[in-house]
Amino acid sequence: MTVDEATRYVRRQALGKAETIYYLYVLDAGQRLLGVLTFRELLTQPGERLVRDVMETDVVTVRDDQDDEAVAAVVSRLDLLAVPVVDAEGRMAGIVTVDDVFDVVQQEATEDIQKLGGMEALDIPYLQTGLLAMLQKRAGWLGLLFLGELLTASAMANFEDEIARAVVLAVFVPLIISSGGNSGSQATTLVIRAMALGEVHLRDGWAIARREVLTGLVLGSILALLGVLRVYGWEAMFGTYGGQVGGVALTVATSLVLVVTLGTLAGSMLPMLLRRAGFDPASASAPFVATLVDVSGLLIYFSVARFMLGL
Amino acid sequence: MTVDEATRYVRRQALGKAETIYYLYVLDAGQRLLGVLTFRELLTQPGERLVRDVMETDVVTVRDDQDDEAVAAVVSRLDLLAVPVVDAEGRMAGIVTVDDVFDVVQQEATEDIQKLGGMEALDIPYLQTGLLAMLQKRAGWLGLLFLGELLTASAMANFEDEIARAVVLAVFVPLIISSGGNSGSQATTLVIRAMALGEVHLRDGWAIARREVLTGLVLGSILALLGVLRVYGWEAMFGTYGGQVGGVALTVATSLVLVVTLGTLAGSMLPMLLRRAGFDPASASAPFVATLVDVSGLLIYFSVARFMLGL
Repeated sequence: MTVDEATRYVRRQALGKAETIYYLYVLDAGQRLLGVLTFRELLTQPGERLVRDVMETDVVTVRDDQDDEAVAAVVSRLDLLAVPVVDAEGRMAGIVTVDDVFDVVQQEATEDIQKLGGMEALDIPYLQTGLLAMLQKRAGWLGLLFLGELLTASAMANFEDEIARAVVLAVFVPLIISSGGNSGSQATTLVIRAMALGEVHLRDGWAIARREVLTGLVLGSILALLGVLRVYGWEAMFGTYGGQVGGVALTVATSLVLVVTLGTLAGSMLPMLLRRAGFDPASASAPFVATLVDVSGLLIYFSVARFMLGL
Repeated sequence: MTVDEATRYVRRQALGKAETIYYLYVLDAGQRLLGVLTFRELLTQPGERLVRDVMETDVVTVRDDQDDEAVAAVVSRLDLLAVPVVDAEGRMAGIVTVDDVFDVVQQEATEDIQKLGGMEALDIPYLQTGLLAMLQKRAGWLGLLFLGELLTASAMANFEDEIARAVVLAVFVPLIISSGGNSGSQATTLVIRAMALGEVHLRDGWAIARREVLTGLVLGSILALLGVLRVYGWEAMFGTYGGQVGGVALTVATSLVLVVTLGTLAGSMLPMLLRRAGFDPASASAPFVATLVDVSGLLIYFSVARFMLGL
């Protein structure tokens, strides 16, 4: 067609059903997508030029079998108002407009956030969700995490003798395990979001592991320093730890470095392992990672204590 | 103008600088927004009709002093491709297109997710963030949370005598406090996301508090039941708790109900209090709520134990 013919054709179409007239898609007789031009480009070209000489042939498309999030990533990255959808043979199957994608992206972000918080995603807004539905979405994961967390009681029961000999050990348990949980929460949050945005892929696993171990060692050392200051500070002020002060400080510091590094490593790798196994990476919620790290952190802490304090 | 005059005018404009020609905004001489019509509507109307008789006068607008998230909520809710921006006097100041909003929404979701994970938001993608920048974004919150968690050591130190008399008490500490942290994580995640989506406002505070207390009581009771089964199960199999089994079961169950309810209440109210005080609600991260609940949960647990076990 010439530009003039195309303009008349588009105007007739615009009277009808077309959802957007911002982008014009050029097809051959077999419905294969050849190119794209904007309405503005059509208006600015001489009427006798051919559409094929005016159109952009390097067209960004998505496939009709791609998932919502992948399409959203394309539209978002390229700042498009609409993107054409083609089938496996390159035939135009329709368009996705940015407002469709927008809803998908908001919905996906909401689901990821809710899963990260340690629950199933709600299907409807918070205040409209009935109490029973709300309980169903929350009780399952909370119960599972509780069953996982029961292992902490078993782990600690193994060290009852050590606790009885040095009650001071029990005092630092919440501090140590929560530090691992917090560093794990940071790592899992970062990796899950980066995966959702398409910034991080399974092939980046080793790079991420190296980076998180290094980050964990530094963060753990910072917390260890704070912990040692606290132990010696209390010793100086209250004489809390008596002859054990060096051992307690060393136990706390060593455990913090190990547990925080375990947290960053487990938190970053778990979403990747879940995706590799075909599950939703966002299921590696912050509370899930924290539970894992609580159990293993306790074993690390009491093993270090047994060694350092000669219990 | 008539429809014909408007069509010629729009075509001239389209040659120039206008970003979108999907919506046409009708202004008076003082640049005040009178109405809107689509290009398609313009093409389908008789050429001699006046634009004022064709246009939609009930126009959705945003104000030039509204923040990004509020604008995103409007565009998202109404599935608009563009929304006109007006100043305080109703004069047209520009338009925001959905692709602009799209980037804002993705960015805001990423920031909220990262803050919820207990860190500062990264400004650039995960893999591009240098190690030093990464440490800066994570060490601050991790250190603050650690200082908060140090209070757990102080809280537990107050109960060293009780622990020495019943070491079994220490065994359940991680279980009890992590359950409070997990229920708090669910609640704070739900409320922060609902606030970001504009589904929940400060005026809903009481409704949310009531709902979360009720949810917490039910969830806490479910976990209490699991906890009691565990205590009596171990007692039957291993005789772990001896004469104290009833007291231990009652202590664990009562503490779980109280701590889980505290978690849901603190987790849901903290984001609202932060917004009321002018801070970002997403700063009430899951680890922050968990730390609060850890400290207060310990006090609850040992107080209940002291009472139930007569220590």
